[in-house]
Amino acid sequence: MARRRKHWGWGYEDEAVSAADAAGASALVEERLGFAAQAPEEPVPLEAAALRAPRPLPPPPAGVPWDVSDHARATHAWGKSYLDVVRALRGRFDHAPDAVARPGDECQVAVVLEWATEHGVAVVPYGGGTSVVGGVTPAVDGPVVSLDLGALDAVLEVDPVSRAARVQAGILGPELERRLREHDLTLRHFPQSFELSTLGGWIATRAGGHFATGPTHIDDLVESVRALTPAGTWASRRLPGSGAGPSPDRWLLGSEGVLGVITEAWVRVQPRPRHRASRAVRLPSLELGAEAVRTIVQAGLRPANCRLVDAAEAAFSGAGDGRHALLVLGFESVDAPVDGLLARGLELCAEAGGTWDEPAGAGHREGAAGAWREAFLRAPYLRDVLVMLGVLTETFETAVTWERLPALHAAVRDAARGALGDERALVTCRITHAYPDGCAPYFTVLAPARRGDEEAQWWAVKRAASEALLAAGGTITHHHAVGRDHRPWYDRQRPDPFADALRAAKAAVDPAGILNPGVLVDPLALPPS
Amino acid sequence: MARRRKHWGWGYEDEAVSAADAAGASALVEERLGFAAQAPEEPVPLEAAALRAPRPLPPPPAGVPWDVSDHARATHAWGKSYLDVVRALRGRFDHAPDAVARPGDECQVAVVLEWATEHGVAVVPYGGGTSVVGGVTPAVDGPVVSLDLGALDAVLEVDPVSRAARVQAGILGPELERRLREHDLTLRHFPQSFELSTLGGWIATRAGGHFATGPTHIDDLVESVRALTPAGTWASRRLPGSGAGPSPDRWLLGSEGVLGVITEAWVRVQPRPRHRASRAVRLPSLELGAEAVRTIVQAGLRPANCRLVDAAEAAFSGAGDGRHALLVLGFESVDAPVDGLLARGLELCAEAGGTWDEPAGAGHREGAAGAWREAFLRAPYLRDVLVMLGVLTETFETAVTWERLPALHAAVRDAARGALGDERALVTCRITHAYPDGCAPYFTVLAPARRGDEEAQWWAVKRAASEALLAAGGTITHHHAVGRDHRPWYDRQRPDPFADALRAAKAAVDPAGILNPGVLVDPLALPPS
Repeated sequence: MARRRKHWGWGYEDEAVSAADAAGASALVEERLGFAAQAPEEPVPLEAAALRAPRPLPPPPAGVPWDVSDHARATHAWGKSYLDVVRALRGRFDHAPDAVARPGDECQVAVVLEWATEHGVAVVPYGGGTSVVGGVTPAVDGPVVSLDLGALDAVLEVDPVSRAARVQAGILGPELERRLREHDLTLRHFPQSFELSTLGGWIATRAGGHFATGPTHIDDLVESVRALTPAGTWASRRLPGSGAGPSPDRWLLGSEGVLGVITEAWVRVQPRPRHRASRAVRLPSLELGAEAVRTIVQAGLRPANCRLVDAAEAAFSGAGDGRHALLVLGFESVDAPVDGLLARGLELCAEAGGTWDEPAGAGHREGAAGAWREAFLRAPYLRDVLVMLGVLTETFETAVTWERLPALHAAVRDAARGALGDERALVTCRITHAYPDGCAPYFTVLAPARRGDEEAQWWAVKRAASEALLAAGGTITHHHAVGRDHRPWYDRQRPDPFADALRAAKAAVDPAGILNPGVLVDPLALPPS
Repeated sequence: MARRRKHWGWGYEDEAVSAADAAGASALVEERLGFAAQAPEEPVPLEAAALRAPRPLPPPPAGVPWDVSDHARATHAWGKSYLDVVRALRGRFDHAPDAVARPGDECQVAVVLEWATEHGVAVVPYGGGTSVVGGVTPAVDGPVVSLDLGALDAVLEVDPVSRAARVQAGILGPELERRLREHDLTLRHFPQSFELSTLGGWIATRAGGHFATGPTHIDDLVESVRALTPAGTWASRRLPGSGAGPSPDRWLLGSEGVLGVITEAWVRVQPRPRHRASRAVRLPSLELGAEAVRTIVQAGLRPANCRLVDAAEAAFSGAGDGRHALLVLGFESVDAPVDGLLARGLELCAEAGGTWDEPAGAGHREGAAGAWREAFLRAPYLRDVLVMLGVLTETFETAVTWERLPALHAAVRDAARGALGDERALVTCRITHAYPDGCAPYFTVLAPARRGDEEAQWWAVKRAASEALLAAGGTITHHHAVGRDHRPWYDRQRPDPFADALRAAKAAVDPAGILNPGVLVDPLALPPS
């Protein structure tokens, strides 16, 4: 029997966290965050949750596994944003779909789309359900089915010469890596949602991996994409590069389920790196750290890891002394030692006032970068505990050119703090990705939650931060996607004629408008919350 | 007075080549190609050319420079494909536009689009006119204006912190580099058409530079794009990266003038490299050379230059001994010496049987790579001479994954030879760009032209080669674009629902269908030749 996902929060049922478990973390929370945890809140069991009855649907298409259980509908009602976790904890599943379709193969995906088009039923493509922006929330004014691609989870072919693999879209991160490891290969794509997110979801949302530079976005790891639209199969050739018109793959990358259902892709894989070197560098401030990062990437060094965390965030994550910003700088290579690259990177850090400790002994195989990655991938579990303890925890991320970074950083930080209106609130910043022309600042907000009023509290911060980052020249999202939550700012960011073109393109391949209504182009039928 | 472009062939009027000049090259042609040049053909002077009278147009929009001279119409009648050069040499300008508009600023571009939409006049955006695929040929069944962006040639802003520049679309390659050099910066984008092509043209056609790996395509050098459509301005934000829906820039990249007129872009620039090292490596065969190239890029080495030329092409270009394939392998860096990278690359070449000579003395600053680049950029001039001497000279390029390369190479070579049916014909191959998962093979065809029948001769080769490369898994173009000549194969390569989506997108932003009719999506109104 396959493990079942928890009906609230991150992970599986056998990883359930009780209020008593959470209580054990109260003291640590207060020590790290500087404000007291609240009494741990017991999750509402699924049996006690108020799921509205499903709307009537036409008879489901023959042969397609069809799930109308409370567990299926509840686990497909939300993604994994802070508010989603809060709502599910309280047993609220306002937007539960009327059914969950679990096609066993691509033919059955086509059958569902045909059925939905014929009957005017909305379809929300669902990979791992880890959206933090309402991207898989069936907030639709009418009958709606969540289309769960989880059964399309095979690695179909591996080409060791060209180093590519043909993979079905519903595969989860760990299973994909496990299958590739049998061929001594890796996709090397590790978003924070890695454990529970899927290849198809990564492509649909232009996911960013945890590597700081180089091909970290899934965009650059895709060789070709295959998607089903109500108008037929949208499948590109396997090509290392092409100049034949606009890239069909780049139209699907970021399409968030509104143009078609991604069923498989050829992705670029590689052997696992054999050479690694990394250090944790202390820097006097985030500003000076950002200068070091800029110098490093503009020198063409391409570190695998180059995450800069401000002093406060380094402190509460247990990695820093509260006085220094912390840069995890790591290099890796499949071919040659990288000590020279690290040495050069450290030289540039020193010019910005950086200091570091040489590792004592052999240490962990991956050094600072490896330890950091473990913590990174465990973070979603930690958030569940914080929610139970009444801690509002949210992240906003963007990207901006270097010359605008200082003003953007100050504006977003101040806007978030102002909106929270609570002097205990922590608003911290890290730089997650670095480019020669800019970087991706990532803000973390931690504050005492106003229990029962979290939605208003969260939206106040979200609105203020989004307004500030848009005004400061950023993008509403660097790698969290648009979904439903980011629509107001996305609509102002995108070029108007592009929106017209995208809307027309959607109408051409999805004439009945069944695919993920409310995302990217259509009017929002219902607010997501 | 600005230099005027020649009415046929490459370059400017003050570089005109006479039949007597060409005759001087006859002996060298025979020595290198192994077949005799024909009697040099004298170009038909423009005054003697048969330009049809312009079709009647509505009164031109007030204030927009408007040119109906024979010289303007003739120089905007064709691009720079082999057949284009042959036709212009003979004084044939079948598809001369009815007028050439030369807007002096972006407002005037908007005025022309409004005028054209109102009156149903087709508009062919024209940058440098170097298309080799009929992309700027006004082969339209009705009134048509060529929209020459040449006056929009300013560098508007330079941001030295984020290393980006805001540049107007009509700027030519050399002028752009000259202006950036004032800031010690370079775009580092050198397509073979560099001298006469424009930034806007590069973006519209997804141009490839001469660097073999890394950000060589203009796609990766673009930070944001600004275009005018009949439905309004399509302008993206300056962003180093973004995950907010499908990239608006990637819709314009490769749009070949059918969605809008690109007027400016922010591009990523960088200091000029301070460290360079390169060698010319002899390899036993193209096959073994390709293995060396694959190993080098899969090791993550990212050479700036990694051009592999087969033995025959190396011989007739004067660089090889006729027995060895030749690999120009070069590294460069803005920050650190690259000798270690070159040494590692050469080790991998040696494993494939490669040999090389160490340079005697300091040599040319850029070594083998620099000498090669000079010849590369002069090639279009050489072609004019070959055309006058009755040599058919054509290139076909594609991209393909590594595991399919040997079969594609054999199939395209045999198809081209078969279609020529002339045992004197040379069909050679080089690898111009290399990726971890594949490469871009580039075929050169040199054969005695059947004078007066070149169109049939050329199309026979084009058809055969295109069929072969499509069947072998390649793309119809890696960096020459689609234009009108590649339409039959492009239409089979692209996914059908994508074509529907693109057609709908175009209709949304260009409802009157005035922009470059016949390119990418519309039916071809007239064959380009």
